[in-house]
This record gives sequence, structure tokens and C-alpha cells, in this order.
Amino acid sequence: MQPGVCSSPRCPSASDSFPLSHLDPAECGSETSVDQQKQERAEFSTMSSVVSFYFSYLLCLCLGFVCVACVCYWNSQWRGGFAWDGSTLQFNWHPVLMVSGLVVLYGYGAVLYRVPLTWGQNKLPWKLLHAGVMLLCLVLSVLGLCAVFNFHNAKHTPNLYSLHSWIGICTTALFAMQWAVGVAGFLLPCSPMALRKLLKPVHVWMGASILSLSIVACISGINEKLFFVLRGNTTQAYASLPSEALFGNSLGVLLVVFGLVVLMILSNQKWQRPESRPEDMTYRPLLQEDN
Amino acid sequence: MQPGVCSSPRCPSASDSFPLSHLDPAECGSETSVDQQKQERAEFSTMSSVVSFYFSYLLCLCLGFVCVACVCYWNSQWRGGFAWDGSTLQFNWHPVLMVSGLVVLYGYGAVLYRVPLTWGQNKLPWKLLHAGVMLLCLVLSVLGLCAVFNFHNAKHTPNLYSLHSWIGICTTALFAMQWAVGVAGFLLPCSPMALRKLLKPVHVWMGASILSLSIVACISGINEKLFFVLRGNTTQAYASLPSEALFGNSLGVLLVVFGLVVLMILSNQKWQRPESRPEDMTYRPLLQEDN
Repeated sequence: MQPGVCSSPRCPSASDSFPLSHLDPAECGSETSVDQQKQERAEFSTMSSVVSFYFSYLLCLCLGFVCVACVCYWNSQWRGGFAWDGSTLQFNWHPVLMVSGLVVLYGYGAVLYRVPLTWGQNKLPWKLLHAGVMLLCLVLSVLGLCAVFNFHNAKHTPNLYSLHSWIGICTTALFAMQWAVGVAGFLLPCSPMALRKLLKPVHVWMGASILSLSIVACISGINEKLFFVLRGNTTQAYASLPSEALFGNSLGVLLVVFGLVVLMILSNQKWQRPESRPEDMTYRPLLQEDN
Repeated sequence: MQPGVCSSPRCPSASDSFPLSHLDPAECGSETSVDQQKQERAEFSTMSSVVSFYFSYLLCLCLGFVCVACVCYWNSQWRGGFAWDGSTLQFNWHPVLMVSGLVVLYGYGAVLYRVPLTWGQNKLPWKLLHAGVMLLCLVLSVLGLCAVFNFHNAKHTPNLYSLHSWIGICTTALFAMQWAVGVAGFLLPCSPMALRKLLKPVHVWMGASILSLSIVACISGINEKLFFVLRGNTTQAYASLPSEALFGNSLGVLLVVFGLVVLMILSNQKWQRPESRPEDMTYRPLLQEDN
């Protein structure tokens, strides 16, 4: 038997149920018991890696869902609910849309390529899904900005004066640029492979930075909102930590934990999608794809 | 000549002036012109990598210095200066010490291992310097917390109620844990090499996360402070963007840019210190070190 060529049923191929098996190329072609032990250890390590990925991914999904549920509950329970009429009820859409779009859905979209189940398949549909999810995030974020701009304009309050607003608007602008450059660089047929290779690490790094900036904007925004609305009588003052303050602070902590889990998934080298096959780097219309 | 053994003056060794040369092991042992061209390209790539590192490092140093200067200037120029008497002048130490310790000096300490000039030398003195700088950061941060606790206690204001304070105290606690685990794991002689290998990626990731959390705490803190102090008459209200507001917001943006530059340096694989030699992983007292 040639070294590196595997005929054993133990040896998984790239499209097998353990997609992380590419990480240890030494696991095939062994015939001695030492090599079999090595192979078993490699399979165990692969399996552990997949299990720990799915545990982190499930945690990410649950945390994101809880964050969206909490921000909706906060604004329904304590802030009077939602409307689109220039009142404070319109403002309430701002935190909901920014948390849902610029943090949670963005985080889900960012870790999409890390899901091992997608690795055996052609990359293009996943690229389109990634771009689609990110476009939805961008639309939600812009709607969230419209909510606060309309509210300010109706009250004749200046826009974009606080540090929170400066960070928030820069983050959304960076995100819009990132999306446009991403589509132009990775989806347009005229984009050369050399440019894609150059762009990829920048795109990944910029994506993680935008998520971090979103978290910065959210935390400063929640902190600012709680100081705004909880400055009445002593029992409701922020410093006396009424239930709304505890809930808002906990939402902030949850958002930070969600962001850290997403960044941990993104930064783990073992969980990165294997390098694309050359045919994935060139553009083919969706209908011509294998999958 | 054996492949991989280099006798050419073009071929740099690990301790040469281009310490990033370890990145391309194929650059030695070539005798044909094609190999020479490859070698020249590798040297050019190495040189570019070193130059771009030092450009980023200089940017990081300058941005950090400007951040510290700005936070000092803000509190001297607009907030009345400094004292340690329970008054608002004592509070003014809080932003100065947190920005200096938990962000700027922390950032400098985090990128210490990335400086190529240190790679040809024994790692232990740099480990001790890293631990020492981080201890200084921790002391400054704790002093910064003392400043705000004393101020609150003197005014009978509750401590730790805002989201800013929750994030800030968690960040400092995580940093203290990270420092203790770092010293126990990487400096104590009884720490086994297997544990060090396991700990290293967690330590690096946690270090980057703590810096991100520090930035989150700083931005929410500056935002909160500006809302607190600029709510007087209309010309000095935050919404009318007086000079203090513009200055404070700009400080916030600078801190974010500093954080992103540090995280970019930390995340760039090309700029990572080469793997330690086995003798660096075991403990030897400083006086016995080569350097």
C-alpha cells in the first residue's frame, strides 16, 4: 500500500462525517499498531474538536437568541413598547434593531463558514448566504439608525453628538464598506484570485473588529440610556439598581459574552474552513454549482 | 552542499538582523538562479514584513502616548486637575489611571514579544519584563479603582451600579486572574511544559479579550462622564458639542484606534515570535541566563 493512500474503513475522507479530519494528514496509510494508535488518537482529537466546536456554536446561537429576547423585553416591559411615529416608542426600535442586526445576526453570519457540516459542499452558496445575512444585518442597522434620527429630529435634538453615536455611526459605515468590498472582492467574476487571497485576512480581521466596535457602541448606548431614563425619584434612580437597571446591565454583560464567544470561534485556527479548492475561487453562477 | 544548509552571505540565521526570516525555510541551500530569485523574493518579503511591523509598532507607541497625554490634558484643562482628597479632583485620577494602565501600558506589554529585535535573545528576561509591565498595569488599574471608590464613598454614592462599572470591575478581575495564572503557568519552575503549551493560546486570546473589554469600559466611561458634566446651560450641553465634548469624543476614538492597532499586531501570524527552544520552556533563574 502506498504511504498516504488509505483503504481502511477507519480513514475518513474530506467529505466524511468528521470534516476536521484534514487537520492531521498523518492518520492514513498506517499498518502497524503504533500507527493505528496514532490514528485513533488523531480521530479522537478530531472528534473532540468537532464536539467542542458545536458546543461553542450552540452557546453562540443561544446567547444571541437570549440577547434579542432581552432587548425586546426591556423595551416592551419598561419603555412602553414600539411605534414609528417620532415618539420615544420609535426610539425603542433603535436598541432592538442594532442589537439584532449589528451584533447577533452579524455574529451568526460571521461564524457561518466555521460550521464543519458546510465544508464538504461547494463554497459559493455559503458565500451567497453569508453576503445575504450580512446585507440583512446592514438593512436592520440602517433602520435602527433611522429610528433614532427620526426621534431626534421630531424632538429637535441634535444628532451624532455623543461618543456612543460617533462609534456607532463609524461602525455602521465601516460595515457598509466591508460589505461592498466583500461582494466586489469575493463574488464578482472579474475579481482575480490574487486579490481574493490578499483580501481574505483583511476581510476576516475587519469583520472581527466591526463586531468588537458594535459591542463597544451597544454597551455605551445601554449605559447612556439607563442614565437617561433612571434619574427620577430615589427608588428608580440608576444608583439604587431597580429591576430595569439590573436587567439592562445584565443584557450588556450577555452581549459582551456573546461577542467574546463569536470572536473565540473566529480566532480558533482548528475551526477554520479548509482552504478552498481552485474551482471555488472562480465565479460560477449558482445554477451551475454542484450543490 | 546539503539541502537546507546555507553558506551564502545572503542567508540570514535566526539571530541575524532579519529575525522574520524563519518564515520561509525554503530560502537556504539554493544554487540555481531560480532558487536565487526565490531567495531574493523571500528576503524582500521578510524585509517588507519587518518594515510594516515597525511602522505599526511606532503607530501603536505614538497613539498610546497621545491617548495618555489627552486624558491628562482633559482632566487638567476642563476638570480642575488632580488631588487625593475624596473630591472630584480625586475622581479625575480614575480615567487617567485606567487609560494609562488598563489600555495603553497593557497594550505596550501585550505586543512586547512581537518585536523582532528581541527574538534572537533568550526569552526569560522578556517574560519577566512582560510580567513586570503587566503588574504595573494592574497596580495602576487598582489605584484607578481606588480613586473612584474613595470619591463615591466620600459623596455617599453607591459603587458598582452602572453597566460601565460592571464591565470595568469584571475586566480588572479577569486581568488579575490572567496575571496570576500567567505567572504560575509560565514562570514557576514546577509548571510542566505540556501545561504551558496548553495555556499559551488561551493566555494570548484572553489577553486580547481583556484589552477589548478595557476599551469597552473606557468608551462607556467617557460617554457617561461627558453626559454627567455637560448638562448645564445650553452652550455647555453635550448636545451642543462644546470643545470639551469634542476633545472627549476624540479621545474615545483615539483609544478605539489604539486598541485596533494593538489587536492587529497581536493577530498577525507573520509577526509572531518563533516557537521557543525547549530550553526556554524550562525555568532557570535570571542570573543563569545567557543574556
